[in-house]
Amino acid sequence: MPVQPPAKTGDPVGAIDTPAMVVDLDAYERNLDLMAAYAGAAGVVLRPHAKTHKSPVVALDQIARGAVGQCCQKVSEAEVLVDGGVSDVLVSNEIVGDAKVARLSALAARARIAVCADDAQQVAAYGKAARAGNVVLHVLVEMDAGAARCGVAAGDAVVALAQMISAQSGLEFAGLQAYHGGAQHLRTPDERSAAIAQAGERVRTSLAALQDAGIACPVVTGAGTGTFTEEASSGIWTELQAGSYCFMDADYARNQVADGSNVPQFEHALFIASTVMSATAPGRAVLDAGHKAAAIDSGLPEVWMREGVTYTQANDEHGLLSVSDPVRQPSLGDRVWLVPGHIDPTVNLHDWYVGVRGGLMDGVVENVWPVAARGCVF
Amino acid sequence: MPVQPPAKTGDPVGAIDTPAMVVDLDAYERNLDLMAAYAGAAGVVLRPHAKTHKSPVVALDQIARGAVGQCCQKVSEAEVLVDGGVSDVLVSNEIVGDAKVARLSALAARARIAVCADDAQQVAAYGKAARAGNVVLHVLVEMDAGAARCGVAAGDAVVALAQMISAQSGLEFAGLQAYHGGAQHLRTPDERSAAIAQAGERVRTSLAALQDAGIACPVVTGAGTGTFTEEASSGIWTELQAGSYCFMDADYARNQVADGSNVPQFEHALFIASTVMSATAPGRAVLDAGHKAAAIDSGLPEVWMREGVTYTQANDEHGLLSVSDPVRQPSLGDRVWLVPGHIDPTVNLHDWYVGVRGGLMDGVVENVWPVAARGCVF
Repeated sequence: MPVQPPAKTGDPVGAIDTPAMVVDLDAYERNLDLMAAYAGAAGVVLRPHAKTHKSPVVALDQIARGAVGQCCQKVSEAEVLVDGGVSDVLVSNEIVGDAKVARLSALAARARIAVCADDAQQVAAYGKAARAGNVVLHVLVEMDAGAARCGVAAGDAVVALAQMISAQSGLEFAGLQAYHGGAQHLRTPDERSAAIAQAGERVRTSLAALQDAGIACPVVTGAGTGTFTEEASSGIWTELQAGSYCFMDADYARNQVADGSNVPQFEHALFIASTVMSATAPGRAVLDAGHKAAAIDSGLPEVWMREGVTYTQANDEHGLLSVSDPVRQPSLGDRVWLVPGHIDPTVNLHDWYVGVRGGLMDGVVENVWPVAARGCVF
Repeated sequence: MPVQPPAKTGDPVGAIDTPAMVVDLDAYERNLDLMAAYAGAAGVVLRPHAKTHKSPVVALDQIARGAVGQCCQKVSEAEVLVDGGVSDVLVSNEIVGDAKVARLSALAARARIAVCADDAQQVAAYGKAARAGNVVLHVLVEMDAGAARCGVAAGDAVVALAQMISAQSGLEFAGLQAYHGGAQHLRTPDERSAAIAQAGERVRTSLAALQDAGIACPVVTGAGTGTFTEEASSGIWTELQAGSYCFMDADYARNQVADGSNVPQFEHALFIASTVMSATAPGRAVLDAGHKAAAIDSGLPEVWMREGVTYTQANDEHGLLSVSDPVRQPSLGDRVWLVPGHIDPTVNLHDWYVGVRGGLMDGVVENVWPVAARGCVF
């Protein structure tokens, strides 16, 4: 990793070395407050997803505002969260492999740990590890909410797994994982609404089957930044897993919102600070930030507050700008702010958050903190 | 970062936690030997690019086989290389910003450091920093070899910058940087040959202009894994910067080679070990390796040695497999090996190399070493 971070507390914004991942702390805190207020008013529990931010610092900021705990996808992320003081973690994913499951159950001696299952083998492995560690693992059944990825079919298969979980000493059936990833970036509100309505039907089917079998379902958890208002208002989901809302990204900003909607609007709060490091021909310029600085799986970064300047190509270490009008030509050494296309994998590329108070133009670095769970892939 | 690495020395391959980045050491060493032999026979200097591997361990393996030193793109990479024992580093890129240039000149007290320029402002900043640090910086003029990214136009502009470099005490004009990134992945040999022939014309123009101005050009450096045989046989380039050859990737493997060609053929030597973590429906399976484990900017990973099984979608933490025939259906817990689409950004996602001796099926972990310059983006 780099020998030193790109900034230190007290630096003016202009002194931040680039590329750097910069948080507009004012916008970030408004985003956290907005979501906390929304969840509170809607009467649902908020369990934000740490796969976005990979930081106990952000987790504790969310928990201080009422979040019940955190989600994550990997055991190594859960380890970093628990080490950082988070006492309630849901691994919203299946964990396969004896070594990994043993690490998960070791964590359950130090925090409330929940995990998902969509296969009897996983349930058996979780139970064996929990008993070996003399701990309780809370296990949710993952139901395919429509994404055709992980999860069992709604109804009987959910009941069968819930019964297996309840039958294993060391395990507690903790509810239903019903996340529809494919719905998050459907562009129109009607499309998103229809997708979550369909997922809701599957949840209802599963809840009815559980009730018929005499099994109480304490939690229905799911939702992301694209659809959480649908789940929250459904009367079915009890817990929201949205993650990206804390920082927002260019791709989520492309989701349309209905006129007059009261859906909370989050601000861009995370940026990549970059520098023009070559400008040898009119109409173009080259930034020091390519796709090792901003993930491009959901589209290229967008240039922030520079009309007529577009990020048109990402190489490994270079970003190409196209300039529509000669008067807007960036000069060598200019600072250019980028909004990443996709927050989660962008955060995973950086070692430090640089937190700025007072805006990107005239602000001051208030804190620099590590992306503690960066690279926690296993 | 993760609390522990995914394997330890002596582990059997099957014990490697996943996702993990695994090097087939036998194939890797054959690749290094093959390129070293090629460069030696062609009479050109080899200066492999560390942007691929980000590891002093790999760098020293290359130098032990005759490489003159390393290239890299960022000052923070150069710092890690010099700290790791590399004594000759070319930053094959422009460096802009006083703090960065000061770090570069500090390195020049400990190693031979070269850097590129395509603007007079950069030359002035390099000179000022070199004099302040009482060191020599070796500066190459970057010429646009055809990629329309960085670099000045061939000819007079090259001469003007070379003269500025020579006029600055603390700087030495070290040659011409002429890398054609856009040519590396042209699919047919004829396309690549034509692109490098055009780049060669630009180099010839520049060399003639330098000669007319009485300026000796000690080095012409460039080339990548896609085109290095063209540069090596041109009689113009003196130094090769290829990087990916040490590990190869799926995208470079898509380059076509002419029948009867004697172009060296490198083997896939770097793999992502992954595990089937969900398999709830016939015809598909879900891996624990998505695009946080294998970069997808140059295409999805390819499944290694499992006929009829295709990696069809990368989510952040999940990889979807499509299965053409029920008898080939992977089972929960199965190990699946992936060849990344693009090596450089994939390496940058991982904290450790897991080196395996004796093959991916029955081998043993020989060493685990850090991706020391991972995240060195600035």
